Amino acid sequence: MTAYDEFNAYVAEINDLLCAVNTLVWDGRTQMPPDGATTRGLQVATLSRLAQERFTSDHMGRLLDAADAATQGEDADGYRARAVRSAREAYAVARRIPLALVGELAERKSISQQAWEEAKQRNDFGHFAPHLAAMVRLNRELAGAIGYTAHPYDALLLQYEPGMTAARLATLFTELKAGILPLLLRIAAAPAVDAAFLTLPSAPEQQRAFGLAIAQAFGYDLRRGRLDVAAHPFEVSFTRQDVRITTRYQPTYLPGAIFGIFHETGHALYEQGVDPALTRSAHTTDFLGLYAVGGASFGTHESQSRLWENQIGRSRAFWQCHFPRLQQMFPDQLAGVDAERFYRAVNRVQPSLIRVEADEITYNLHIMLRVEIEMGLMDGSIAVEDLPRIWNAKMREYLGVIPPTDSQGVLQDIHWSTGYFGSFPTYTIGNVMAAQFMEAAQRDLPGLDQTLATGDYQPLLAWLTENIYRHGRAYSPEELLMRVTGSGLQAGPYLAHLQTKFGELYPQ
Amino acid sequence: MTAYDEFNAYVAEINDLLCAVNTLVWDGRTQMPPDGATTRGLQVATLSRLAQERFTSDHMGRLLDAADAATQGEDADGYRARAVRSAREAYAVARRIPLALVGELAERKSISQQAWEEAKQRNDFGHFAPHLAAMVRLNRELAGAIGYTAHPYDALLLQYEPGMTAARLATLFTELKAGILPLLLRIAAAPAVDAAFLTLPSAPEQQRAFGLAIAQAFGYDLRRGRLDVAAHPFEVSFTRQDVRITTRYQPTYLPGAIFGIFHETGHALYEQGVDPALTRSAHTTDFLGLYAVGGASFGTHESQSRLWENQIGRSRAFWQCHFPRLQQMFPDQLAGVDAERFYRAVNRVQPSLIRVEADEITYNLHIMLRVEIEMGLMDGSIAVEDLPRIWNAKMREYLGVIPPTDSQGVLQDIHWSTGYFGSFPTYTIGNVMAAQFMEAAQRDLPGLDQTLATGDYQPLLAWLTENIYRHGRAYSPEELLMRVTGSGLQAGPYLAHLQTKFGELYPQ
Repeated sequence: MTAYDEFNAYVAEINDLLCAVNTLVWDGRTQMPPDGATTRGLQVATLSRLAQERFTSDHMGRLLDAADAATQGEDADGYRARAVRSAREAYAVARRIPLALVGELAERKSISQQAWEEAKQRNDFGHFAPHLAAMVRLNRELAGAIGYTAHPYDALLLQYEPGMTAARLATLFTELKAGILPLLLRIAAAPAVDAAFLTLPSAPEQQRAFGLAIAQAFGYDLRRGRLDVAAHPFEVSFTRQDVRITTRYQPTYLPGAIFGIFHETGHALYEQGVDPALTRSAHTTDFLGLYAVGGASFGTHESQSRLWENQIGRSRAFWQCHFPRLQQMFPDQLAGVDAERFYRAVNRVQPSLIRVEADEITYNLHIMLRVEIEMGLMDGSIAVEDLPRIWNAKMREYLGVIPPTDSQGVLQDIHWSTGYFGSFPTYTIGNVMAAQFMEAAQRDLPGLDQTLATGDYQPLLAWLTENIYRHGRAYSPEELLMRVTGSGLQAGPYLAHLQTKFGELYPQ
Repeated sequence: MTAYDEFNAYVAEINDLLCAVNTLVWDGRTQMPPDGATTRGLQVATLSRLAQERFTSDHMGRLLDAADAATQGEDADGYRARAVRSAREAYAVARRIPLALVGELAERKSISQQAWEEAKQRNDFGHFAPHLAAMVRLNRELAGAIGYTAHPYDALLLQYEPGMTAARLATLFTELKAGILPLLLRIAAAPAVDAAFLTLPSAPEQQRAFGLAIAQAFGYDLRRGRLDVAAHPFEVSFTRQDVRITTRYQPTYLPGAIFGIFHETGHALYEQGVDPALTRSAHTTDFLGLYAVGGASFGTHESQSRLWENQIGRSRAFWQCHFPRLQQMFPDQLAGVDAERFYRAVNRVQPSLIRVEADEITYNLHIMLRVEIEMGLMDGSIAVEDLPRIWNAKMREYLGVIPPTDSQGVLQDIHWSTGYFGSFPTYTIGNVMAAQFMEAAQRDLPGLDQTLATGDYQPLLAWLTENIYRHGRAYSPEELLMRVTGSGLQAGPYLAHLQTKFGELYPQ
């Protein structure tokens, strides 16, 4: 066995452990009988720890050194050299984090999550505050261990969006706000859009049938996938050969599951599109990535869920093509509605309290608010006990609404309770990247609008697969953006998309 | 941490790996999209290997030595001392098996299984023969590595039924044949039983509803379990907190799924009944067993599936109690049938070709035939190429029928293709033990027949849990039998059961 093969085989083992963790988690969230939760948690913890121990072992360091030496002189842009390089970087970061800290974060997670659930239920921020304070403290320690020069948040971002920094985010958000806030002001003055028909009762089986039909039209391969129900929907991959999505059916809100399925399908297409040569196999000669996820970053992954959900699924062309089928499946609910009215209803803009229910524009303001708070918590300029006040003040400033309760405000998201700080920005980064990629696809595929208008998604999927999906984790998000669009992360295309689309929907 | 706790924590890790394997296998057989099979196979192989490496490591040996020293002077019959002792025995055996042999068996498995499937489909024993010959050779090597004094089969039996030997099996089978063959001759002369109504079309959902209602009546806890569809039904446990069963619905054979569910429920009740103190938990202080299975042996486990399926589920009292409900659910199929006719139909005895379709009596003859062949393959007195001839001769001798094709004969079972030799005896051992346990329950619970007649299974389940289930793997099958029934494995109670039941059903 060559040094590279040895490195690769060891990484493949770690990948197998992590894919097993993914299976245990998927099962836990979709199939597991309720009383299995505790022992399942222990199993997930053990396997995660075994993977972590192997990845951060001295043995891994020696394998990396040998593989590095063996790939010197090879094409530095090739998968093999990249595999070794990115594994070295991840290894260096992982070795800087004390195992005790990893352990304490993991141990606190379930208690903290439970406290958050209780606090949310009882509208009692004080009940969650000490747990949140502990998570903030541990994440500041984590940032210190990983290391940073400008801002502790930079260290945390590394886990989700390599190359992103607090400073770059601040610039991006300033640009976005400058475009979004005036647009929102104008929309606020417009008459309300009629969307009452969206909240009529509709059967979950029918919602599923429509969503899945579109997922397949987008290109989701059910020989390598399946759709289940989950309280908090997600996509998960156990190699490109098995990529599963979940959704939640709301009996009196038709768009929830439909756009939810489009969204998770976008994630799934990314994973199903990874080059088979990069997939863990009995004859693996290349590298899929250390954490069994194919995407360049959380933001890049999110760009694909947003692209299929919003750029495609919430477009006028989409509904002109597919509304007749939807109407046929929901004849009572959609009697007298036409494609245009439906298109306008699912694109109505309305500042609201809850992030996951927000529209395409205001969603980003929910994110900015959270990210600004996270940065403040990390650099110490915001204290945990001030969070409800700061949250409400920012909601009023950005969205003009004030949560009547903390449950509908600062307590609404699970993220902080689980100890994750730094993932929120990737949602907005995803929106921004989606517009950049879509602009590049339009440039490369002259007839794209016509094929999309006929419901033919094959040319777009082929382009995305060729340019993005097949590479898995091989490129950093910035490299990928440069290769595909010719520039780094840019707010321009996204703002142009919002201004064109919503300028037309809400004329002055 | 004490030496015992250290040993225990290490075993708990191995258990978590094996529970994860169980989850991956369950998922693979019930949920996984078809194209996920190859990468799933790799994941299962990696986790199994990691568990095996850890269990057979020098480190494990040191932990065992220390734990052994630490438990000297403790109650030798207590769980702690037993845990260390049985782990030492398993460790000693596992260390004697060369890793290369484990690897070769695992590697050949999928190819051999595929060859068997093709051979069965094409009725071409010659296509499978070389693969089978390899599996025989490897199992003879395995027996040699494990070590034996009298017969190589003894070494293989150790994996499934500790304490059982080829010689003891030969004695048991002689006793069973002496009782069964005359009974069978008499039955062959009796008029055929009317069972045409069993093969009328019946909806799978209804089959499921009835089966699951009875499973719950037996005591199967759905907060810690679930029922799914699988081509080859099985029960699987990921600790007592999550014990799942599967079945297969035959659209034109009502008893298939019903008795299949009773059978798997018996396995599941065993696992759900393990003492919570023996369950892997964050505060584990005791030992569940190295392979995540709670039972004393395969035979002991099978005794519980047989007990609930046959001793309870195929009894007259059961159908007098539950037939009205079944008839209500299948009114067309069971019009004009009564409990007695149904009872006789599901207990009709008929020599047939296929083991898994056999009745309560002839089933054992299918097993004896296989076990005698396995012993001959292991001691070299039977050659692989003679198998079709020997199979057919034995079928004719024991059952009076000759398979028209090898597909319905020597090729019918998957077991040998996967390299398992020595598990078949446990099916008949299970029948024998079930009757012994049932006799003991009757002795200990004077009103048992009356409670069973009213459909109240709680007293029986409580007795089984107290005497058998809660102990998990703590006792060997012989120890358990001695504790519960006062004697070792005995054919008497089983033969008495058959003679009483079928003597009445088929009077002279």
